[in-house]
This record gives sequence, C-alpha cells and structure tokens, in this order.
Amino acid sequence: MVLTLSNYAKDEWYQAGTGLAEIHSAVDDSIVAQTGTDGLDYAAILDHARKVGGSALRAMTFHERAQILKSLASAIMERKEELYALSTATGATRSDSWIDIEGGASTLFVMSSKGRRELPEDTILIDGDFEPIGRKGTFAGQHVYTTLQGAAIHINAFNFPVWGMLEKLGPTLLAGVPAIVKPAMQGSQLTEACVRILIESGVLPEGALQLIVGGVGDLFDHLTAQDVVSFTGSAATAGKLKNHPVIQANSVRFIAEQDSLNASILAPDATPDSPEFDLFVKEVVREMTTKAGQKCTAIRRTFVPETLLGAAEEALKARLAKVVVGDPAAEGVTMGALASMKQLEDVRAKAREIATEAELVFGDIDLVDAVGVEPGTGAFISPLLFRADKPWDAQRIHDVEAFGPVSTLMPYKDIEDAIALANRGLGSLALSIFTYDPATARQFVAGVGAWHGRIVFIDRDSARESTGHGSPLPMLIHGGPGRAGGGEEMGGVRGVKHYMQRSAIQGHPRTLSGIVRQWLPGAPQPTGEVHPFRMAFGELDIGYTFNTDSRTITLDDIQHFAEFTGDTFYAHMDEEAAAANPFFPGRVAHGYLILSFAAGLFVEPSPGPVLANYGLESLRFLEPVTPGTAIKVALTVKSKKMRKAREYGEVVWAVTVTNQDDATVATYNLLTMNEV
Amino acid sequence: MVLTLSNYAKDEWYQAGTGLAEIHSAVDDSIVAQTGTDGLDYAAILDHARKVGGSALRAMTFHERAQILKSLASAIMERKEELYALSTATGATRSDSWIDIEGGASTLFVMSSKGRRELPEDTILIDGDFEPIGRKGTFAGQHVYTTLQGAAIHINAFNFPVWGMLEKLGPTLLAGVPAIVKPAMQGSQLTEACVRILIESGVLPEGALQLIVGGVGDLFDHLTAQDVVSFTGSAATAGKLKNHPVIQANSVRFIAEQDSLNASILAPDATPDSPEFDLFVKEVVREMTTKAGQKCTAIRRTFVPETLLGAAEEALKARLAKVVVGDPAAEGVTMGALASMKQLEDVRAKAREIATEAELVFGDIDLVDAVGVEPGTGAFISPLLFRADKPWDAQRIHDVEAFGPVSTLMPYKDIEDAIALANRGLGSLALSIFTYDPATARQFVAGVGAWHGRIVFIDRDSARESTGHGSPLPMLIHGGPGRAGGGEEMGGVRGVKHYMQRSAIQGHPRTLSGIVRQWLPGAPQPTGEVHPFRMAFGELDIGYTFNTDSRTITLDDIQHFAEFTGDTFYAHMDEEAAAANPFFPGRVAHGYLILSFAAGLFVEPSPGPVLANYGLESLRFLEPVTPGTAIKVALTVKSKKMRKAREYGEVVWAVTVTNQDDATVATYNLLTMNEV
Repeated sequence: MVLTLSNYAKDEWYQAGTGLAEIHSAVDDSIVAQTGTDGLDYAAILDHARKVGGSALRAMTFHERAQILKSLASAIMERKEELYALSTATGATRSDSWIDIEGGASTLFVMSSKGRRELPEDTILIDGDFEPIGRKGTFAGQHVYTTLQGAAIHINAFNFPVWGMLEKLGPTLLAGVPAIVKPAMQGSQLTEACVRILIESGVLPEGALQLIVGGVGDLFDHLTAQDVVSFTGSAATAGKLKNHPVIQANSVRFIAEQDSLNASILAPDATPDSPEFDLFVKEVVREMTTKAGQKCTAIRRTFVPETLLGAAEEALKARLAKVVVGDPAAEGVTMGALASMKQLEDVRAKAREIATEAELVFGDIDLVDAVGVEPGTGAFISPLLFRADKPWDAQRIHDVEAFGPVSTLMPYKDIEDAIALANRGLGSLALSIFTYDPATARQFVAGVGAWHGRIVFIDRDSARESTGHGSPLPMLIHGGPGRAGGGEEMGGVRGVKHYMQRSAIQGHPRTLSGIVRQWLPGAPQPTGEVHPFRMAFGELDIGYTFNTDSRTITLDDIQHFAEFTGDTFYAHMDEEAAAANPFFPGRVAHGYLILSFAAGLFVEPSPGPVLANYGLESLRFLEPVTPGTAIKVALTVKSKKMRKAREYGEVVWAVTVTNQDDATVATYNLLTMNEV
Repeated sequence: MVLTLSNYAKDEWYQAGTGLAEIHSAVDDSIVAQTGTDGLDYAAILDHARKVGGSALRAMTFHERAQILKSLASAIMERKEELYALSTATGATRSDSWIDIEGGASTLFVMSSKGRRELPEDTILIDGDFEPIGRKGTFAGQHVYTTLQGAAIHINAFNFPVWGMLEKLGPTLLAGVPAIVKPAMQGSQLTEACVRILIESGVLPEGALQLIVGGVGDLFDHLTAQDVVSFTGSAATAGKLKNHPVIQANSVRFIAEQDSLNASILAPDATPDSPEFDLFVKEVVREMTTKAGQKCTAIRRTFVPETLLGAAEEALKARLAKVVVGDPAAEGVTMGALASMKQLEDVRAKAREIATEAELVFGDIDLVDAVGVEPGTGAFISPLLFRADKPWDAQRIHDVEAFGPVSTLMPYKDIEDAIALANRGLGSLALSIFTYDPATARQFVAGVGAWHGRIVFIDRDSARESTGHGSPLPMLIHGGPGRAGGGEEMGGVRGVKHYMQRSAIQGHPRTLSGIVRQWLPGAPQPTGEVHPFRMAFGELDIGYTFNTDSRTITLDDIQHFAEFTGDTFYAHMDEEAAAANPFFPGRVAHGYLILSFAAGLFVEPSPGPVLANYGLESLRFLEPVTPGTAIKVALTVKSKKMRKAREYGEVVWAVTVTNQDDATVATYNLLTMNEV
C-alpha cells in the first residue's frame, strides 16, 4: 500500500493533489509513500503559528508547557508500535528505531522534568544574579528571558524521523514558541505518523504545531527577527539557507547542525591489555554500524598511538567480521540498509574519495552479502574500514563525510599530535577519548574543547553506564563549532533559551521585583498583623516581611553551644587566639548558633501551612558576632513555586540577620515546603 | 600639526607610506591626522595573534587576565588627559569624552572585578550543574567552556573611539583571546593613542593586541571557526561582512551591533503632575544632545499617551531651547558637533526623510547658531524634534536612523498600542519606560522583552541613581535583536563566553573531576592521616576527605536544642502533630541541630590554616532524623580559589551527613577562608 502523506497546516490535515514525490523502501526500493506541499500558503502558516499558537503558548507558564511535553511523550509511548511498523522500510533495525522512537519520547520526558524542576512557574525567566548598580540600592539590574513572538522552523534530517523532530520540539514548546516542522522526505512517513499521534493526544493548543511534508516554497521570504530556523542536514543546504537575504536582513536566528567528521581517540595509556582498548574497539564498530552509520555523531576518524596501529586494525577487523548486514526484519541482522538508493550512491562515491588517500582494510565498496535480501536490491553496504598511515599528508579523510558505515583508522605520535589531528576535522559534534587517566583527560579537554561540542570519556569504571560516543542526550548540548554548523540544541534549559530573548532590565528594585515576581534586595518589605507561617500559600505576597524581636547572644550561650555541639573551634573558645585571627576581634558566636537563634526568633511553632524547612541557599556570614550582640531577623517572602504536581508549594524566604547597629551579620535564603 | 597614525602589527608600530586617508576636525574641518594600512600582511597578523598572543593568554588563568585588565584601566586613568586633548577635534564636549575615556576605563575595571569574583582560578570554566546520567553514578555530564583558539576581530564605530574598543577588549582578553582592533577612521587618532597607552603599560603579552588604522584588506579571507568578528556599525556594512563567503563556510561567529530605532515611552500613569513626566522630558533631551545624538542607544522615537501629546511637545521644546550648540572647547556649550561633514550631510538627509512623515516642531535642518564657531564651518546641527500624530500611518519614522540629535514624538492609545509601536522598530538596543507602577512595568516587559536588548525603567525613587536610558553598563548585556543586529556584548561574564566554546563533557565523575579540578559526586574521596583543617592551602588535594566518628542524636538533644534556641516548631516537640506532617514519622531533629552536631564532628578546634567558616551553599535536608539516629559526616575538599589579591584562600568543602544505614540525611557546601 502506498501512503499519501498529509501536511498539517492551520490545524487541518491537507494532502497535496499535484507535485507529489515518491518515497522508496530502503530494503527493496518499492514505493512506500508519496508526498508534496503544492497549494500550501506559507505566509498564512507562519501567521497562524505566531498569532494562534504563539499567543496560546505564551499565555502558559513553563510548568504548563512542561506538562504538555510529558503528555506528548506518553502518547508516543502508548502508540509506539505504529511507528515501529513504519520504520523497517527506512532500513532501520528494531534497535535503530528504538533510538529514534523511544529515544525521542524519552527526550520529551527529560525536557518536561527539567522544565518543571529548573524553570519557574511563570512566563518570564530570570537569568543570573541581581546586579546592584547604585550605591544606595535604588537602581539595579536584572537579566531576564522572554519568549520570542515568532515561529520556529525546524528543518530535519532523514536519519531520525521521530527523534530529530522531538529533540527540537521539546525546547521550542517549553519556551512557548510554536513550531513548523519540515522533515526530510526520506522517512517522513514516520514523522507524519508521529505528528498525528501528537495532534490526536489533544494536549497541544491550536497553532502550536504544523507539518510540511515537502518543499518550503516561499516560507523563508516571510521570516522576521522573532522567528528561529533550526536546521539539521548538510553544510551545502545550510549555507544556502543561511544566505537567504531575509535571514541576513532581519538577523533571523539560525541554529545549524550540519556535517561533522567526529573522531575517536585511543589515549596513550590504553594499551592492548587495558580494558579501554577493548571498549574502544567495541565502540568504534558500534558507531560504524548503528543505523548503518547514518548518525551525525558517528565516528568517521579513529586515532590510535602509532605503535598500536596494527593491533587496533586487527581488533577492529575481527569485530567488524561479526556484523550481519541485511533486511532489518530478518533474524540475526545487526546492521540494516542505508536510507535510500541515492544515499547508497552518495556513500559509495565518498568512500571512493577516501580511498584515494587511505587503504581499504575491511569491506568492499560495491559488494555486500545482505541476509534476507535479493542480491543487488536495497540500499545495503558493507562496513568499510580505511587505514591512513600518514594523516598529515591527507586532506579528504579529514574533510569528506561518508554518511554510512565508514571510518578511517590513523596513527598519532603523542597527545599534542592527537589533539591537532582531532581538531583538523574543523569542528565536530562528538569526540570520544578512551583513557583511564584524569590528567590525560584534562590535557585533551584543554586542547580539543574549542573544536568539539561534546567530548565523551570512556573507561573501565564508566563503561557499563556510559551512553557511548554517539548518543546526544537531552540534558547535554548537541551541536558543534565550525564544520558542525556552530549551533547548539537541547542541553536542558540551555536549549529553551535559544527560543527566547535575553534582555537587561534596569530600574528600582521595587520595579524589578514586580517584573520578575520575586523579592529583590531594596524592594519594599511590607509587614502585617499575621505571622507569615500562619498564612496560606496563596495569601503570601512577595515581599511580605516578619520582623522579629531581638535576642542578645551571651558568652555563656557561646560556651554552652560549643559544649553541647562539640564545635570548640578556637575562635569561639579562646579570646587570645580568636583575636589573633584576621577576621575576628576576639571570641565570636558560631555561625550555626546565629542560624539556630535566628530560627528561634522567627519560627511560629504550632502546626500551620509551613510543613518543613528542607534547605538553605547562599548563606554568608558578613560580620563577626561578639558576646553581647543583640541579633534580630527580617524574614521576607522571596519567591513561591508549586512542587510535586502541585501537591506542595515551595517558598523561598530571604532571611537577614542584623545586629543592634542594624549592620547585617548574616543573609541566606531559606526553603520551606508549604501546604497549598 | 597633522598626525600620521600607526598600525600596531606583530608587536611593532608601522606607518603606511602610501594610500593615506585624511581625518578632518569636526569643529573646523581642518586636517587632524592621516592614516592607512598599505603594506600590512593580514594573514601574518592573524597568525601572530593566534600563535603568539593566543598561546600566551590561554596559558594564564582568568584571574591573571583579570589582573591585566585592571592594569590597563589604571594606565588609561593615569594618562587620560592625553586622550581628552585629542577628543575636542572629534566634536565631543568634555562630558561626552568622559563617557568615552573614563567610561571605557571603568568598563575594564568592572570586567576585571567580575573576572576575579565570578570566574575560577583556572583556564576551564564550568557551566551549570553536574548532570548525573547513570543511576549508579559511574557516568555523568558536565558542561565547560574552553577558550577559542583563534583571534577576535573588533570592528568599531566612530562615535566612541576609546570606550568602543575597551568594551570589546575587556571580555575578549578575559576569555584569553587575542584581539585585532580596527576602529572607524573618524576618531581613530584617539583609538591609536589609547592603544599606545595599553601597549606601553607593559602588561599585555606579545600578540595579545594589534591595531589596524584603515582598511582590512584580505583579513576576512583568512578567518576560521575559532575566530570571532565583533562588529559595531551600520546594518549595511554588517550585512556585507556577514555575507563574506568565509564567514558562512566556516561558521565564523559574528557579533553584530548595528542600527537601532531606540524608543522611550511615557507610561499612562506618568501624568504631567508626576515626577516621571519631568524625568522623561529631561532624559529625552539629554539623550538627543549627548554626543550630539551620535549614540547607538540614543532615543529616536518618543511615545506618550495621546492625551499628553501637546503637553509633552511643549515641555520638550522648552527644554531643548536651553541647549547651547557650539565649539566643545567654548564656555557654556552643552552640545558639540557631529563627527564629520559627511555625518552632517547624512543626518540632514535622514532628517529630510523623516520630515516627509512628521512635522518638525523644534530646530532647523540647515541652520544652527553655533557658539565660538565661524558661521558655516564645522559639523554642527541644531537638535531636531519631529512630531507625528499618526504613527501607524508612517513607515520611515520607525525605520530611518538619523544618527544625530534627532527624535520623533508620537502618541499612543493604550499600553498594548505602546508595546506594538515600540516593537515596530524591529529590534532595538535600549528602550526606556517612565512609570511608577510595577504592574505596568511587568506588562511592558512581557510585551516588549523579545524585541529589546535593554529596558530601563525610570521613576522618582530611582532617578538619582539611575544611569539613564543610553548608558550600556559592563555588568549588563549590550545588544539587541533584529535591526539591532542580534548580537550581545558585555553583560559581565556573559560577554566572556562569546569568546569561548561550550562543550558537554561526559565520563566517570573521577575523570570529570580531574578535568574541572573540582570534586564531583561519585569521584574518589581518598582519606589520610592528617585532618584537612591542619593541612596548608597548597597541600589540600581536591577530593581529600575526612570521615568523622558518629554521634547519636537523642530526644533529649532535640528537647534541649529547642529550649536553648527557642525553635519549638511542633515537628520537633509534639510527637502526634509531627506524625501528622506528611514528611515526618514523628518528632525529628532540627535541621540546625544536625548542622551544628555535624560541625562538632568535623571541626578541628585548635588554630590552623582554616580561619573562618564564612558561608554555606546548597543545603538540602534529605531524610528526617528521628531520635536515636547516629549521624556521621564526610568532609571533602571540593574546590579551592585564591581570594582578595591572593591574601587568602577560599576552600569549598562538600559535606555529606549520613545516618547509621548510610542514607544521606543532609548535603551542603561549606565555605572557609584559609591562610595561604
């Protein structure tokens, strides 16, 4: 059956009647689907995203959007078999598709969880510390992020039709920006099926997600500075799009993840008798063959100490010999097909380029024995291992990305040489280094960091839990400099900020406090009749303050506290020794005594909305407290947030402890869990 | 005397012998200087920067680089009069030049201070939290920034020849990247003089700073992904440079700060009888006339409630009437000249464009009465105030930036209309809003945030300390989206990161810990004979751990602590009420009791290298501690840093409190000040 794919535009499914292109099976080249975009009105699609989707999403808090991501991920997991059923024709094995489908859902789950834990229950995101400016505290600065008012255009590659969409969609929706997704044609039957699941989950507001299965027409002509293009694909296409006059004229954000000659390095300490040597061999072969090497993170260049070149070659070849290429649906197959006959042609052509500089030591560019497949049909290829003994005399092995199961083994002289060779790829997404020596690891990071977006160290102690060389993770950034495009995706909340604008806000702390809905130093601290521990979560206004009575700390208190706790540090016990300390005039109270007495002053003891003090942040002791000092406390509602699925409320209290001269002796933020 | 300016290339001063261009005085059009770059080898300049300057800077820690900035700032302050002497010919008054010269030095001082306080004593910068990945804790992630290995190309505008260089140079050098500075020709005599001061200070390593006083030849042809171009100037030039094929092909970072139709809004609450109305009038006139309106942040569009259009116009005109235009060296002059006759032509042409849509209500495009100047000489112009009653019917007033003392007054209907009009500038560097109402401020930020890089609120309480609409500050970002170029400079440490690469590092915590030189959860915790409080700062190895004996917390302890401190919260005192609390099984120990006993367990009491516990971070109570629980503590050296000009050392200790079942009951980071 040949599917006809639909676009999802302005909240309606739309099949183009003309200009359809065919999608072929990677396994037997039969026609699987047809797709096209004739008749779409791109200006209207953008307008709908911005006005309908953007308005709805921006009205939600980060937590509400995070909840949507969780529901979307659950919807995919419930209907994942529909996606697996479509995936075989893309050439992917079940385990390849697991990365795509369940890896994609998992990315949404993690982004959802990060969103709820690390983002505020608000629409404005605070960035960094409050910046005092005026000496008297009446003028200050605070950076914030607000949501872009445009649309995100996601242009995705063919290799991960599901994950490739979801890893961009998670941060975008969490930021509150509507998305227009344009997958590569190959595999777009999977993307379309996944979009159906997302839409049918019913949790997305109208206009939040649209799908274009085919060309983008004049879409780019209508972009503004509030839109973001996030592109994954070839450098050639990226270059063409980036140079679009509208992108340049309007400073449209363009996030590119393009070519990458990722490398793997066997460090000098990883001799053939070390566990790291074996781990290296396994990982190189795994990365060559997973998804038939069609991963933007796959290892294309493999560096070993020159003395180990022969040993590494033999070990890699022995392991490659166990790879079973064939129909992904057939029993025992460990590597499927490339995505299309066109890709097969392309990989063969690139392999021939590499062959002009390197010796092919495993596999055959043209021949492969594929299990369960009529000889000569389908986009199958053998894993290809090249060896280049003089990597500094070669150019193409550092420049040509054969997007299949292809890697080149090379020797290096010493760590500096290995660093220089790794960097000669001119920017990569992922570099793996096999070492058991942290000093070697540090030396490598200092040398290669500026050229690689992700650097993974694999050793005997981490191997079991390691996610390996080629797995982008939602909590870590994915992207790389230079040849890799200079873009960055995911990285937890970092990825969300690519869809927001950072602004510096200046004004009186009272104004800034009102903007960020958090009490800031210098903002008003109104008091009232009621102790704040007696007020319901919803009643606690930001800035509301309880000023305590004062309590004098005596030498007896200090002496007693020392004996009781066992903390007999000389600064508390010995007048002469304490006075010799550069920070103290003589014996002083313990910091923990000050904290404890402060709590004694501000705590309202009987049961009420405050359930527990579960932590404390940013405590600083600013002035020594000598015997006879009378301390008092100002307890101010700094910020509030719902926790644990709105079961509890978290209150952050700004605590200021002052002495009888009103000098501040300690400040901290106290965290309580409250009933809601 | 006509100066011949010199380039500073490969650590030598070089005067071009041919191809010289003339710089004219803004005041009397006489020739002030000549300048040119004929004969420079740009590839060699870049190579020198990267190999000599970059290597030297990257070998230094952030703190060492911060120290250089401080010395550079001091050198400028010592020789500032040399710069003031040159500045009059640029048309600037003494107070205009104060912004340029002393404002520039101050920017370096602040960046230096931020660098020492907020950056580590290291070359690798940690970004964000440690990210656990494997459940058993053997594989994790950590983001880091490492220094780019290329050069920074700074292309600066003519309006601030000193500050414009220094605001870029501060973050660049702090990041460890060498700079190649190319000032605009107008005013470059000041830049050249300042570079002499910087070089003669003797604190810059070789290759760290080079100067090009003229065209950049084929410089761009040699850029790589490790270089950064930071541009300030016109959108037209930015567009040309951004489209350079090498910039595109190599994903070269390009930070642009270009045109900007900055706006100022009088909020609805700021009626003519309010202090905010007066502040608004003063600020608009100040921004129109400071530096003769040649500031990228100057107010070009001025919005007031429609009912206040007439009142605002009258007040602005009355204040503009007091402006005294003339020779900046003449007594009583409050506004100097534009930078050149060419600028004068340009501003007049732009003003005529604006005049097609708006009525000129103050000033004359062609005539000005300039004090101390021969009529008809010099680049003098009158302040020009336009008024446009129907801002939605006009286009040019929102698009044309007349880079002089020119502003257009417009009415708005309500806050949503004001937001839409402000955003119609399509991206700005600075927006000011005059309001005394925090809710209005929040509404504005939500609506305008995505379009403006800096938003300043001015009111009666902040006015005295406010730095005003048009002052970029080193601790706040400077830049804006869309028309403003989409770039970002300064913002404290944020600006440093533009010259570094962020990478995700993955591996065993032991490896990550070795890379970032900080103990991370899961990294080894070796113990030894010596208590760490007895070890000198230099002897304390990262990860070194002291495991204490255990101590049982009794009900008597809890009872006694409550009575002693006054903290009689029911969870500690009342078995039944405590058990009803969702977090506690019954009476539990106070958090501060746990902290205090923990200190009693780990503190070594006699005088030694540890001088004081000055704070605490990230405290979390993870398990309730019931009577009978035996707690023990692991005290681990987490990180170390020199403080206060290396007089003291700061040690961060990771503290883990566990119970008799080895469950963690509390974790925190303890901060001590140590002798060095």
